[in-house]
Amino acid sequence: MSDFGLIEDLRRWLAEDVGWGDVTTNRCVPESARCVGRFAARGAGVLSGIDCARQVFALLDPAVVFEAHLADGEPFEPGTPVATVSGPARPILTGERLSLNLVQRLSAVASLTRRFVDAVSDTGVTILDTRKTTPGLRRLEKAAVVHGGGCNHRFGLSDGILIKDNHIIAAGGIAAAVEAARSGNAMLRVEVEVDTLGQLEEALDAGADGLLLDNMGPDLLREAVALARGRAWTEASGGVNLTTVRALAESGVDYISIGALTHSAAAVDIGLDFEMQTSK
Amino acid sequence: MSDFGLIEDLRRWLAEDVGWGDVTTNRCVPESARCVGRFAARGAGVLSGIDCARQVFALLDPAVVFEAHLADGEPFEPGTPVATVSGPARPILTGERLSLNLVQRLSAVASLTRRFVDAVSDTGVTILDTRKTTPGLRRLEKAAVVHGGGCNHRFGLSDGILIKDNHIIAAGGIAAAVEAARSGNAMLRVEVEVDTLGQLEEALDAGADGLLLDNMGPDLLREAVALARGRAWTEASGGVNLTTVRALAESGVDYISIGALTHSAAAVDIGLDFEMQTSK
Amino acid sequence: MSDFGLIEDLRRWLAEDVGWGDVTTNRCVPESARCVGRFAARGAGVLSGIDCARQVFALLDPAVVFEAHLADGEPFEPGTPVATVSGPARPILTGERLSLNLVQRLSAVASLTRRFVDAVSDTGVTILDTRKTTPGLRRLEKAAVVHGGGCNHRFGLSDGILIKDNHIIAAGGIAAAVEAARSGNAMLRVEVEVDTLGQLEEALDAGADGLLLDNMGPDLLREAVALARGRAWTEASGGVNLTTVRALAESGVDYISIGALTHSAAAVDIGLDFEMQTSK
Amino acid sequence: MSDFGLIEDLRRWLAEDVGWGDVTTNRCVPESARCVGRFAARGAGVLSGIDCARQVFALLDPAVVFEAHLADGEPFEPGTPVATVSGPARPILTGERLSLNLVQRLSAVASLTRRFVDAVSDTGVTILDTRKTTPGLRRLEKAAVVHGGGCNHRFGLSDGILIKDNHIIAAGGIAAAVEAARSGNAMLRVEVEVDTLGQLEEALDAGADGLLLDNMGPDLLREAVALARGRAWTEASGGVNLTTVRALAESGVDYISIGALTHSAAAVDIGLDFEMQTSK
Amino acid sequence: MSDFGLIEDLRRWLAEDVGWGDVTTNRCVPESARCVGRFAARGAGVLSGIDCARQVFALLDPAVVFEAHLADGEPFEPGTPVATVSGPARPILTGERLSLNLVQRLSAVASLTRRFVDAVSDTGVTILDTRKTTPGLRRLEKAAVVHGGGCNHRFGLSDGILIKDNHIIAAGGIAAAVEAARSGNAMLRVEVEVDTLGQLEEALDAGADGLLLDNMGPDLLREAVALARGRAWTEASGGVNLTTVRALAESGVDYISIGALTHSAAAVDIGLDFEMQTSK
Amino acid sequence: MSDFGLIEDLRRWLAEDVGWGDVTTNRCVPESARCVGRFAARGAGVLSGIDCARQVFALLDPAVVFEAHLADGEPFEPGTPVATVSGPARPILTGERLSLNLVQRLSAVASLTRRFVDAVSDTGVTILDTRKTTPGLRRLEKAAVVHGGGCNHRFGLSDGILIKDNHIIAAGGIAAAVEAARSGNAMLRVEVEVDTLGQLEEALDAGADGLLLDNMGPDLLREAVALARGRAWTEASGGVNLTTVRALAESGVDYISIGALTHSAAAVDIGLDFEMQTSK
Repeated sequence: MSDFGLIEDLRRWLAEDVGWGDVTTNRCVPESARCVGRFAARGAGVLSGIDCARQVFALLDPAVVFEAHLADGEPFEPGTPVATVSGPARPILTGERLSLNLVQRLSAVASLTRRFVDAVSDTGVTILDTRKTTPGLRRLEKAAVVHGGGCNHRFGLSDGILIKDNHIIAAGGIAAAVEAARSGNAMLRVEVEVDTLGQLEEALDAGADGLLLDNMGPDLLREAVALARGRAWTEASGGVNLTTVRALAESGVDYISIGALTHSAAAVDIGLDFEMQTSK
Repeated sequence: MSDFGLIEDLRRWLAEDVGWGDVTTNRCVPESARCVGRFAARGAGVLSGIDCARQVFALLDPAVVFEAHLADGEPFEPGTPVATVSGPARPILTGERLSLNLVQRLSAVASLTRRFVDAVSDTGVTILDTRKTTPGLRRLEKAAVVHGGGCNHRFGLSDGILIKDNHIIAAGGIAAAVEAARSGNAMLRVEVEVDTLGQLEEALDAGADGLLLDNMGPDLLREAVALARGRAWTEASGGVNLTTVRALAESGVDYISIGALTHSAAAVDIGLDFEMQTSK
Repeated sequence: MSDFGLIEDLRRWLAEDVGWGDVTTNRCVPESARCVGRFAARGAGVLSGIDCARQVFALLDPAVVFEAHLADGEPFEPGTPVATVSGPARPILTGERLSLNLVQRLSAVASLTRRFVDAVSDTGVTILDTRKTTPGLRRLEKAAVVHGGGCNHRFGLSDGILIKDNHIIAAGGIAAAVEAARSGNAMLRVEVEVDTLGQLEEALDAGADGLLLDNMGPDLLREAVALARGRAWTEASGGVNLTTVRALAESGVDYISIGALTHSAAAVDIGLDFEMQTSK
Repeated sequence: MSDFGLIEDLRRWLAEDVGWGDVTTNRCVPESARCVGRFAARGAGVLSGIDCARQVFALLDPAVVFEAHLADGEPFEPGTPVATVSGPARPILTGERLSLNLVQRLSAVASLTRRFVDAVSDTGVTILDTRKTTPGLRRLEKAAVVHGGGCNHRFGLSDGILIKDNHIIAAGGIAAAVEAARSGNAMLRVEVEVDTLGQLEEALDAGADGLLLDNMGPDLLREAVALARGRAWTEASGGVNLTTVRALAESGVDYISIGALTHSAAAVDIGLDFEMQTSK
Repeated sequence: MSDFGLIEDLRRWLAEDVGWGDVTTNRCVPESARCVGRFAARGAGVLSGIDCARQVFALLDPAVVFEAHLADGEPFEPGTPVATVSGPARPILTGERLSLNLVQRLSAVASLTRRFVDAVSDTGVTILDTRKTTPGLRRLEKAAVVHGGGCNHRFGLSDGILIKDNHIIAAGGIAAAVEAARSGNAMLRVEVEVDTLGQLEEALDAGADGLLLDNMGPDLLREAVALARGRAWTEASGGVNLTTVRALAESGVDYISIGALTHSAAAVDIGLDFEMQTSK
Repeated sequence: MSDFGLIEDLRRWLAEDVGWGDVTTNRCVPESARCVGRFAARGAGVLSGIDCARQVFALLDPAVVFEAHLADGEPFEPGTPVATVSGPARPILTGERLSLNLVQRLSAVASLTRRFVDAVSDTGVTILDTRKTTPGLRRLEKAAVVHGGGCNHRFGLSDGILIKDNHIIAAGGIAAAVEAARSGNAMLRVEVEVDTLGQLEEALDAGADGLLLDNMGPDLLREAVALARGRAWTEASGGVNLTTVRALAESGVDYISIGALTHSAAAVDIGLDFEMQTSK
C-alpha cells in the first residue's frame, strides 16, 4: 500500500540534499557506471526505515534494484547484512546520504525503544512514545517505536484528549475540564495529567478514562495504581530512563511514556559499502 | 529579513502536530483566556532556534507577543530565562510542543558544537558539520552549528565537490577525478577524501584544493598536514569525539568535521512554564 | 487564531474560479470604483462559514472591509442582514461567487443539522455527523455541524476505531477484531458496528467502548440500548430522516449519526446585494 | 490521457480522510487479506466519477484491480452493477469512503442534469451549468453536467465575459460596458445580463453576443427571444426547477442555466458490497 | 488587489536564486547596513513588471521601502529614473538580481510590442500575442503585451477555440470541426486557421467566428479580408516582423498576432545603482 | 536518473497552458485518433531540452511514444529530423505548444553559447553563464549552456561567493570583505569584482581566489591577467558580444561570462509537423 505522504517528504528531503545536482557524481562518474552497495550494521540494534531507503533510490531512478535482507522490527548485530542496492552508480551515490540518515535515525529510535521494552519484560507494562518527535518525522518515528516493540500514544493534538494543568486552570477545575472535553464527541478518550493523589481522586470522580501520573516515584505510583484500578488506565511519565524504568514498571501501571525514545536516540551505526563496476 | 522557506516548514510541522485541531485546548480553554509562558533553561547550553519558536506562535495567532531574552548563540545556565510568550491562551498552548521540540533540538546541536569548539580552543582548528543532518532540518541545524561556534561544510551535493573513493574508482583514479570535477566551473573548490599518504600525494599532484583525511590518528595526521601545507587545506574526519578531538586538533589540521554534531545531539532541557489568566 | 490550512484551501478555490483574471470586472470596472455589498438571508436557517467569506475578500485585497452581523451558529430569518463587505469594487465583485458558494453550502449543513437537533430536543440524544462529507471540505463541514448544534464523530480514519463487518471477517470474529484494535494504544476508543443483538452481545463481551447499531428500528434499538447500558455507548445509524429521527431518539440511544447532514444538504439561499459607488 | 490535476486533488482528499493511517484496517485486517468489492446502484440515475474511484484505489495501491461495468454518462437502475474492485483488502477498505463520496456526489449532479435535459426534450434547448459549484470540485462537477447531457457555461472568470448589473453601473451603462469588455481581445464572447426588454434592446444595440435573461417568466421570455433572434443568443436563468423548466424552454430560448445542478443535487445512493477473502 | 498566484511564483523564483542563503551578503554586509538602490533605464522602452520588483523585496523583508516613479505601460528614455528601493541592505542586495531579471524581460516584451503597435498606427489593426510565451511566465508576459499597447489572444487551451489543420483532419473537415467545437457551449468563439481562400470560404460557410490567415502575403490577405467582411473577424499570423507588419496591416485585417513579442524579445537594459549607507 | 524537480515544473507549465482542458482538441479530435509528429529544425543550431519535450508528452499520456533522433548538445541544420512523437492524437496536440516552447528556447541558449564558444576557439578561454536567467528556468538554461559548450558560473547565491562593490563598501574595504567571506567555510571560492588595477592588487593581496574584471577592454585585461597569473583566476565580464569576444579572449583571461547567453537568445526555429491518422 503506497504511502503518498512519504513520497512527498522524500522528494523534499532529496531536494534539500541534492540542490541543483550532485556535481561530484555527475562529473566524476560515467553515466554507464554501475555499482553494488551493501548496507551493513556496524553496531547492534533493531531496524527501522528500510522502506524509506528503498524509496529514496526508487525516486532517483526506477532502474535501481533494492533488496532488503531484514524487515523493519528485526534485530541486527555488528556485521549483519541489512540490504543491498545495485544498478546505475549515479543515483546510488547520490541517494547514499539521505538513505543512511533515515535508516540510522529511525533504527536508533527502534533500538532505544527495544531496550526499554526489554527492561520491563514480564511486567505487563506497555512502553509509549510522546509528541516529543522530530518536526516532520513524526509518522516515521512513531512507526519506529512500534518496530522497537513500543506502542503509540496519540499522534497529535486532534486524535486524543490529554488535559494538563493549564487546561484545568482555564476550565475551572478537573471536573469542569473533563466535562468540557467530553462535550464534543464520544470517539476520543479523556486522559488527565495529575501530580498528586488528590488530583487523581478528582479525575477519577470526573470520569477520566486514563491518568497521566506525572513524575511520581515507585511508591506513589503504586498507591495511584491501586486507587485507579478498574476505573481508569494509568500512565507513568516524566524523566524515565533505563535505570529507573523497571522500578516504575513494577508499580503496576499500564503504560510508561518516554520522550527520550524520539528526542534523544543517538544515530545507530549502519554503513553502506560500495563495489564500483565501471562499465567498459 | 523574512525566511520564507522556514514559514512553509513551520506550517507543515504545525499541521503534523495539530491535525484538524487541538481538541483539548479548544474544548477546555475559553477563547478569551490569556496566559503567560516562560521558556526557562533547566540545564546549561547554547541557544538556537529561538526565532523558530517566535514564528510558531506568530503563525498560530499574530496577537501572541513573543519576547526573547537571549539571542541564538548565547549561552544559558539552569534557570536562565530564555523567552516569554504571552497573549491568548489557546494558540500558546497549541504551539507549546512544536516550539519546544525545535528549541530543544537546535540548542542541543549548538551546545554540543560549543563543547567541541571549546575542546580545541587555541589550536586554530575550525569545527565543521557534515551532511549527516536530520532530513528536513538541514538549514536550521547548520545554523545551530554556527550558533555553537562551528562552521559549515557544504550545504548539499550542489555547492561543493567532495571526491570519495567511489568517485575515484569510477573516474579511473584521483587525477582523472579531479580533472573531471574541475571541468564544470571555477566556483566550487575540489576536496578529495584520502586514507593514506600515498593518496594524499596523488591528490596534491592532481591539484586538489582540500583534503579530507579519513580516520587518521594524530601521528598520521601530523605527517599529512606537513605534506599538504601551502598546497591544500586539510580536514580530519571520522569517529571524532570529545575525548579524541584535542589530540587531532593539535596535529595542525585546518578543520575537523564531526557528524555527531547533528546526528547524535540529545535534546537540551528547556521548559515552558505557564501562568494562566482566565479572563473574567 | 489563524487557520493556515483554510488559507491554502481558499487560495486554491480562488484560483479555480478566477483563472488568469476576472476579465469582465477588470475591463468594465475602474480600479478606483468602490462598492458596498450586503449579504442577506433570503430563507431561514443557521449561519456557518462567515469567516471563510471574510478571508476570501482579505486574500483578494486586504483593503476590503468585512463586517459580520451574525456569528457562525446564529439563526437567521428571511431578510436578516448577515454581513457587509465594502471597499474597492474589483476584489469584491471577483470574490462574490466563492464567498457565496461557501456560506450557502456551509449554512445548509448547519441548518439541516439544527432541524435534526430540534427534532430530538429533550430526548438527550446527540446528533453526530459521518465521514460522508464533500472531499476537501471536511473540516469546514464538520464545523458547520457543530454550528448547527450537532457533534462530530471521528474526523477521519486515524482518530477513531470503527470496526465494521469486513474488519470482523478479516480479523476472524468480533473478539479478535476488538483485541487487535486495542493492541496499538489506549488513546482511541473502539466502536463496533453490529446488525443483531447476537453481535451486540459479542461486542460487549469483547469490551467494545461503543456500538454502532446499524439500521435498527425503534423496538430493536430499545432492546439494544437496554443490553448495552453501563457497558458501552450506543449510536443509531442508517437511513435516518426528519420523519424517523424522533422515534429512534426515544429508544434511549446516546447518539444518532446522519450522513445526510453533509451529503445532501441543499444550499441555503443567501444573497449579496450591491451598491456601486463609482469614484469620480 | 492522464489528468495530473485530478491526481493531486485525490492525494489531498485521501490525506484528509486517512490522516496518519487507517488504524482500524491496519490493526484488524492482515496485510495478506484480499477482498472483492462491488459498486452497485441502489437507486436510479446517471453515472459520473467512475474514473475518480479507479484513481483512488490506484493511488493507495497499484496492485488493486478496478473494473468499471458502466462508463460515465450511462444510466443505471437499482441493482445495476457499476464497478468491481478487487485485490489486497487494506487499500480497498481504506479507499472505500472517498471513492463512494465522489461517485455518489458526481452521479447526483449527472442524474439531476439528465432529469432537466429530459424535461426539455424536443424543445431544442440546451441545459447549462453555472459557477455555483462546490469549491475545489468544479472540474469534476462540470464534467458530470456533460455526463448528464448538459453543457458547460464558462468555467470561471477568465474564460468568458458576463456583464452583470454592477459592471454596467461601474462602466457607466450597457454600451460602455460592452465596449470596455470588447477592448481586450476577440476570443471571448460578451454576454450581458438583462432584467427588462429595455435593457435587452440596449444590449443588442451595443453588440452583445448573448443575453442572460434574468428571472423572466415564459411570456416575457418569448418577447425577449423574438427581439434577439438573429442578433444574439439567449439564456434564461434564475429560479428554474423541474416544474417550471419546460414552460421556459418552450419560449424558444437557446439555453437555460440552472445553479441547482451543482449546488443542490442530493447524493445518489450507490453502495459498495464486500466479499472478504482472508488468505490462509 | 493582491495577486496570490504571483506571490507563489516569486517565492519559487527567489528560492531558485537564493538557495539556502545569500552567503556573500550575509557574511560581508552587517545586518544593520542600509542602502538606497535606484532603478534607472539605460536604453529606451516601455515599462512592465515594476510591481513584481516591489513584491520581490516585500517578500524578502517587509521593511524595504519601494517607490515606483513610472507605472507599467509608461515609456522611458536612457536615464529615466524608474524606481527607488531603500532600507536594510541585505534583502535589497539579495533581491537585486531577480527584480532586474523580471523588469528587464517584461519591459522587453512591452517595448517590442510598442514598436509593432507604433508600426501599424492609424491602420486600425490590433496587435495580438500568442501562446509562444516563456513557460511559467505567461500571465506576466501577457500583461506586458497589454502594457505595450497590444491585446491578448486566448490565455491557454481552455479559454478559446482555435481549429488548426490537424483538428480539421481529425474531425473530418472544416464543417464537422466547427460543428463539434460549437457543441460544448456558447461562451467561446470559434476561430479557424486557413491557408487558402478555398478553406476560408469553407470556414465562413461553417459559421466560424474568426479566421486565422496563416502566412498570407498582403495581396492574398486583402482578398481574404474582403471575403470575410461582415461574417468573421480576421487575424494575420506567421513570420511577421517590423519590416513586414505595416503592409500586412494595410490589408484591412482586424488582428495581427506575433509570436516574437514573447519568444524573442531581448532583455531591455535597466540597471540598479546602489548607494550604501553603513550604519555606524 | 529521474529529475523530480523537472516533473513538478512541467506539471505547472502544462496547467498554465491547458487550464481546465484543451477544448478544441477534446471536441474536434476523436479519442481514438492517432497521429505522428515530427520535430524538424527549420534553422541551424544546437539542441537542448529534448528530454523536456519527452516528459511533456509522458505526463499527458504514458501511451505516447517519443523517439529522439538527436541528443542534447548535438548540432542540427535546417531540415534535420530532431525527434518523432507518435500515438494517441489528443495528448500530442495538447502538448505541442509547451514542448516547442521549451525546445526552441533552450536550443536558442545552446546555439548562442556555441557561437561564442566557436568564436574563442583555440584561445583556451571558457565561456560562462551568469544569473541573468529566466525566472523558473535556471536549471534548464544552465544545462543548455553546457550543451552549447559553455560552463556554469555559480547556480545561485548560496553556492559561490562573488563580492561586488556594495559588499566591499558595506564590509569596509576589499580586505575586510574577503576575510568576512572566508569566515564561514572552506568550500566556496571567493571571487571579487574589480574595476581597476588598484582594486585588483588589493583583491590579490586579500587572497581572493578569482577576479571578475568588470567592463575592461582588451589592453587593460591583458595587464590584469599578467598581474593575477598564478595567484587567482580571471573572468572578464560586461557587455560582451560576438564582435568583441575574441579580442577579449586573446587577453589571456580564463573565463568570459556573458549574460546574453540566457537573457537575450531569440528562440530557435524548430517545428512540429503532423500526420494525422484517424482510426476508422
